Amino acid sequence: MFTITVYPRFGDLDALGHINNTVPSFWFESGRTQVLKMFDPDLKVDRKTFPLIIAHLDYDFIDQLYLTHEVQIKTWISKIGTKSFTVSHEAWQDGRLCVKGNAIIVHFDFNKQVTTPIPDDKRKLLEEQLVSG
Amino acid sequence: MFTITVYPRFGDLDALGHINNTVPSFWFESGRTQVLKMFDPDLKVDRKTFPLIIAHLDYDFIDQLYLTHEVQIKTWISKIGTKSFTVSHEAWQDGRLCVKGNAIIVHFDFNKQVTTPIPDDKRKLLEEQLVSG
Amino acid sequence: MFTITVYPRFGDLDALGHINNTVPSFWFESGRTQVLKMFDPDLKVDRKTFPLIIAHLDYDFIDQLYLTHEVQIKTWISKIGTKSFTVSHEAWQDGRLCVKGNAIIVHFDFNKQVTTPIPDDKRKLLEEQLVSG
Amino acid sequence: MFTITVYPRFGDLDALGHINNTVPSFWFESGRTQVLKMFDPDLKVDRKTFPLIIAHLDYDFIDQLYLTHEVQIKTWISKIGTKSFTVSHEAWQDGRLCVKGNAIIVHFDFNKQVTTPIPDDKRKLLEEQLVSG
Repeated sequence: MFTITVYPRFGDLDALGHINNTVPSFWFESGRTQVLKMFDPDLKVDRKTFPLIIAHLDYDFIDQLYLTHEVQIKTWISKIGTKSFTVSHEAWQDGRLCVKGNAIIVHFDFNKQVTTPIPDDKRKLLEEQLVSG
Repeated sequence: MFTITVYPRFGDLDALGHINNTVPSFWFESGRTQVLKMFDPDLKVDRKTFPLIIAHLDYDFIDQLYLTHEVQIKTWISKIGTKSFTVSHEAWQDGRLCVKGNAIIVHFDFNKQVTTPIPDDKRKLLEEQLVSG
Repeated sequence: MFTITVYPRFGDLDALGHINNTVPSFWFESGRTQVLKMFDPDLKVDRKTFPLIIAHLDYDFIDQLYLTHEVQIKTWISKIGTKSFTVSHEAWQDGRLCVKGNAIIVHFDFNKQVTTPIPDDKRKLLEEQLVSG
Repeated sequence: MFTITVYPRFGDLDALGHINNTVPSFWFESGRTQVLKMFDPDLKVDRKTFPLIIAHLDYDFIDQLYLTHEVQIKTWISKIGTKSFTVSHEAWQDGRLCVKGNAIIVHFDFNKQVTTPIPDDKRKLLEEQLVSG
């Protein structure tokens, strides 16, 4: 499991005084950087070789987030298929679970614009972070 | 059904040359403004009286979006419950359906921090935009 | 002069109930798309050939923006140098000038990572949109 | 001087493979949280009492930022006037100064919608972080 700490910013609040619901999508994307590194170790994101595309994202909002405290983002692999895998996330603030979410990521060849099987060496890296629900 | 046209911006592209997956969340939120108006006609968003909170968001990415063309955002009501309702969205670019998504919105009293039933007059406004799946 | 209409979204508001000061940077970037088209007509943004980089951005906040009305973004060229030019912007809401801003854009070769002179054909396109202060 | 570390996210990259120029505005806003705390210690951002509004923002882009490394955001007070003050920022990545910027913040009464003098106790807090250029 990967954990990072993020700092809410003033503009992340919306008019209701809590963090707007679009903001955790950014935090979870930051949390996924360690997963991207499995497939692109230097994070150079060359379009010719970068092999991942997002197929689905979901978010469940369990408790409200505020500007008052840092937020811990937990990230792990929850499912591994032949051509896709699921990354799961939680956002915690001051001991409270506030948001849960998932990203389904497909192994993809951008040149041919087709899905491709996850290579065995990458599958092993994913399995090291696999936490069964 | 509500439809708005949005303009992708240069920074909406990511390093893969397509619109980043976090961007449609902004477009769909813009599409929901007409729904918010049912509950807050002047859009003043007074924390004491604004009655809605997001419980869930999901996005399915069907085709890639680019900087080249405007995007049409379609928004409608797909389900109405006692204390919550579902807003559905689609993003279309150049005749292609690119993203589908849903927002589950709960009728909520921010002062008491509890869910509350959708009032009958608001339910009627929602029903006018109801499209059954 | 180029003009587009943009729709504020709920999350563009911050806890003070007005549009957060980071938001006009997105709108102005959308307004610049017509300028980018002078240099990259198909908006494909190929890293090997795209010739522009931002050197400076500034924003003056003159009046507050709200969720209540659409916003008109005006964009024009205010200065043309040998290797750089300035794009100026204004954001208007409901007849009020709310934000003024400038972007200094440098003609740049990303392969060699050096500034390069603006070609004559592009200079002519810029001059067509030049409005002297 | 306040320093925080921020994590670029995949979507912060634009099609040129570097961090988009709108992104440092978010990082600098995060860096200003410690300054906001001088005026709103609990960060509750109550519209009736919160006393600050942004009048000007500027950014100079000195070197390109990438996804590869964390970014250090340095924040300090560079000028204190009667009714306004200037917060300055730098973004550093891997030992390179990449962005410099300033925010001019005005002491403001949102109820009366007028500027007001900075109180003496707050001025002292600002002076503790004052670094003359």
